[in-house]
Amino acid sequence: MVIPDNHPRAKSLHERHKLIEGLHNNILTEAGLIAHGRGEAFDYLLHEQTHRFAEKAIKAAASQLILAKHPIISVNGNTAILIPEDMVRIANKHKIPLEINLFYRKEGRVEAIKNHLLTFGLDPNLLFGCDNSQYIEIQEISHLRRIVDRRGISIADVVVVPLEDGDRTQGLKKLNKKVITVDLNPLSRTSQTADITIVDNITRVFTLLEKELDLITRDEALEYLKKYDNQVILQESLRQIRQFNEKN
Amino acid sequence: MVIPDNHPRAKSLHERHKLIEGLHNNILTEAGLIAHGRGEAFDYLLHEQTHRFAEKAIKAAASQLILAKHPIISVNGNTAILIPEDMVRIANKHKIPLEINLFYRKEGRVEAIKNHLLTFGLDPNLLFGCDNSQYIEIQEISHLRRIVDRRGISIADVVVVPLEDGDRTQGLKKLNKKVITVDLNPLSRTSQTADITIVDNITRVFTLLEKELDLITRDEALEYLKKYDNQVILQESLRQIRQFNEKN
Repeated sequence: MVIPDNHPRAKSLHERHKLIEGLHNNILTEAGLIAHGRGEAFDYLLHEQTHRFAEKAIKAAASQLILAKHPIISVNGNTAILIPEDMVRIANKHKIPLEINLFYRKEGRVEAIKNHLLTFGLDPNLLFGCDNSQYIEIQEISHLRRIVDRRGISIADVVVVPLEDGDRTQGLKKLNKKVITVDLNPLSRTSQTADITIVDNITRVFTLLEKELDLITRDEALEYLKKYDNQVILQESLRQIRQFNEKN
Repeated sequence: MVIPDNHPRAKSLHERHKLIEGLHNNILTEAGLIAHGRGEAFDYLLHEQTHRFAEKAIKAAASQLILAKHPIISVNGNTAILIPEDMVRIANKHKIPLEINLFYRKEGRVEAIKNHLLTFGLDPNLLFGCDNSQYIEIQEISHLRRIVDRRGISIADVVVVPLEDGDRTQGLKKLNKKVITVDLNPLSRTSQTADITIVDNITRVFTLLEKELDLITRDEALEYLKKYDNQVILQESLRQIRQFNEKN
């Protein structure tokens, strides 16, 4: 498939193409494609822009990560396809490990995602969730998601779970972890449950997160989190959705 | 996959499951799964309900179909999976033929959709778009979509094109056909171009359309269409989306 660069939807078409390729390479699942479509629609309602409420949440996320003892970024098929470079750069630079944690554990899928991330230069010591001997079960999370890495999510105090389902987010909260999510639907259970909800397209978030991580000091982070109110952020994002195309 | 009937999202999960099965049976494409996700998100914004503006558009659609000399319903992978019973019932009862018309003409796909529709009892004389000897090209439509059936879309005066892309809708308009669409995004090119835009979930539309077709007379249809204004309908649907979850 050849997509001309001047096509008005070129970026979106490229993303779809990469995701479909990811399905054929056992990285993505079919349900991941449907979920991506939901995200596209919400992003359309946000006029495909990063809004002020998302920037504020990204700064809070960077603050939380800077202050964390054991931060971790959870990786699924969609994020592995959409933002591998971004995740790998942040992991390597800021020593924040990535953990592969999947809803659908198809044969060979973890391995496929692992190899995919390593081709982008990830430090192998910063990749968890792909060594059977390190698996441990968390009762607070249902299904196969409860299998986590004893060096990663298991001991983490701050967990970034982008594009996540509600059950898992609630499970992580029950374990008293600080949960940061990226979710384009401000009313999803994940958005409502997380401590910090970035309502924005994941493809725009991580480069901004990286900038904040580079700049923020521990003192600034503490100060910023004192004032941060996720409920206000969620309200602002809902208001934005309701203003959708208001010139009409 | 077993989905408990009391699951709050059972209907939605069943639909996803059927679509994924459709992908494996060569009826759906991967892009069709992503498109379904977009629809899910817009339906969520409509609180998954048929609103008054959709009912009005459905009545207009029934009116247009009752008055048509050569009506036709265009079928793609998603509609074949989501509403085969509904389409077959309307086709058989009201002698409105179905025409298979695909964006992605993968090997064997037309045949797979044909067989799928026939298992639901479709009168084979009412199925077009699957006999090579009847194909004809329309210059107004780009790519492979321009291949239509000389007994169907080619001579049709009223075309129902649910879940359609903008190029094709515009092409059909250039050919001076009356275009009826079902599209959950009131700002899509298809929605904006069609003569009648039903902003609703396709799985709710066709049973309502059937009721209208059963009831409406030609005189009533003529009268109704005189007053019908699709721009007003589109405005009303946009307003509804903007009221999304306004209790918050």
